[in-house]
Amino acid sequence: MVLVTDTYQSRVDNETTILMRQDPIIYSDPRAEVPHGLAHHQLKNYQKNGFILLKGLFSEQEAGLFLREARKMTADPKIRRREEAVAEPGSDAGRSVFMVHRLSELYRQLVSDVRVANIARQILGSEVYIHQSRVNLKAGFSGKEFHWHSDFETWHVEDGMPRMRALSCVIFLTENNEFNGPLMLMPGSHMHYISCAGETLQDHYQQSLRKQRHGIADPAALSFLAERGGIQSMKGPAGSVVFFDCNTMHGSNSNISPYPRANLFFVYNSVENTLESPRGGLKPRPEFMATRQDFSPMVPLEPAYGGRK
Amino acid sequence: MVLVTDTYQSRVDNETTILMRQDPIIYSDPRAEVPHGLAHHQLKNYQKNGFILLKGLFSEQEAGLFLREARKMTADPKIRRREEAVAEPGSDAGRSVFMVHRLSELYRQLVSDVRVANIARQILGSEVYIHQSRVNLKAGFSGKEFHWHSDFETWHVEDGMPRMRALSCVIFLTENNEFNGPLMLMPGSHMHYISCAGETLQDHYQQSLRKQRHGIADPAALSFLAERGGIQSMKGPAGSVVFFDCNTMHGSNSNISPYPRANLFFVYNSVENTLESPRGGLKPRPEFMATRQDFSPMVPLEPAYGGRK
Repeated sequence: MVLVTDTYQSRVDNETTILMRQDPIIYSDPRAEVPHGLAHHQLKNYQKNGFILLKGLFSEQEAGLFLREARKMTADPKIRRREEAVAEPGSDAGRSVFMVHRLSELYRQLVSDVRVANIARQILGSEVYIHQSRVNLKAGFSGKEFHWHSDFETWHVEDGMPRMRALSCVIFLTENNEFNGPLMLMPGSHMHYISCAGETLQDHYQQSLRKQRHGIADPAALSFLAERGGIQSMKGPAGSVVFFDCNTMHGSNSNISPYPRANLFFVYNSVENTLESPRGGLKPRPEFMATRQDFSPMVPLEPAYGGRK
Repeated sequence: MVLVTDTYQSRVDNETTILMRQDPIIYSDPRAEVPHGLAHHQLKNYQKNGFILLKGLFSEQEAGLFLREARKMTADPKIRRREEAVAEPGSDAGRSVFMVHRLSELYRQLVSDVRVANIARQILGSEVYIHQSRVNLKAGFSGKEFHWHSDFETWHVEDGMPRMRALSCVIFLTENNEFNGPLMLMPGSHMHYISCAGETLQDHYQQSLRKQRHGIADPAALSFLAERGGIQSMKGPAGSVVFFDCNTMHGSNSNISPYPRANLFFVYNSVENTLESPRGGLKPRPEFMATRQDFSPMVPLEPAYGGRK
């Protein structure tokens, strides 16, 4: 018999368990008006589905500026040599660069941009900081899939994030369409926590960035979630933004199309939900994947990029 | 200097060349009325795009019957041991079974069903026979992509098919949707022939069934085709049918969704376009991939399956 002391225990057993979410989704009063925040009906959709797609939140000019920065960074040999740069499985093509808001002045401003930061603060009902940031490039012709996962499962087990009070903000740097492996989300999946079978090895992150092996939800659990809420893919022009809850099940298919897909991911965490020790005696993942140095709240800015809307 | 005696020469050079199609697309008079054939406007669409999607051509009951047959065959150890059965790369999961119209009485009737056979006869303007048949299973969660290719390039080089006077008929055995790696086609691509760089090795088919290595169109050529005509994915309920020209560029992404995708492929070739010797001194591929034993025309039937529409 196992005494469960961790609400969101995972990877300690040979069985997959489906648990109910124990945390709120919207942490602030949904009727309170927030400058640059979501409207009441948008918050209700986020509450129900676990995500919201905001088409064209940034202008095409702004998205173009952000994309050029991503291409510059991923082509830069100085950055490609850093541990923040992760390649595609079986290739040298850049797949992700982490902690871009520390490597780039432009992205440092962008994470604080009121148009995204205030939505994060509104949903999480507190001041926020960046737990992780990255740019994901899914190249045309050869981009690989990301298997289904809940970010929170990993962040809880491997990073010691206590509760579901974090979210991802995805900024489309190119069009995301049905052909280039768009982000797929399972509506309503944020209400269930899939406690995964198996264990986590030390330094699992070095493999999981390229190809996840642990913390993968099993097919029966995924079918359960998909039968309840289906799947939606996040499609829209460059400059569109998706916010999704840290426990929303998501993944994406490969990209054989000629259309490259590039997205920025910013993970906002509540300053009331800062990291503890990883579960199961794991040592913490590196700073570039899960900040521990600095939990101080960010200050929202109104930056003036070229082509500000 | 190379004297080109083969209109559709490929894999003899280090360069990719884009050639104009030298053959008709519709071989019969498009105004002639054919029982169970396509209407005039449908033929015009096929002529222009290189394909046509016919939603619900078979009833859901019929599709269910065809699917059960596919599952029975792919689970049958006697069939799984045969060379006609091909596994997914890096797995034992069944990916394709070839020559299903010879292995199954149900499919033997289905290839001759007037609702598909008469469209093939109408487009190809002659009697037809089956060059190849197969069932493709793209399992949920793990189905892999098929990279872009023109079937004709392979059939010309590896099978010695003289001209572009063949087509594929795809029958959906499950719903094909945006999540489960639907067939993607490039409209208008049938008008250009991508002569590929490189060579073909003997017995290349043993690898190419799992993962194609030769006869792959290069990225610049694919971008050229996609810029001209874009991409369309073939989505519809079980029982829908796609006809596409042997030279239409096509491929599909992976399938991480929980929804399995199963499709039947029948390749109809004109009896006036039967196989010659493969190009470049290759030995013929096995009978199950490219029939040479029997070019006799099929006799269209009106079979009565359970639930005939």
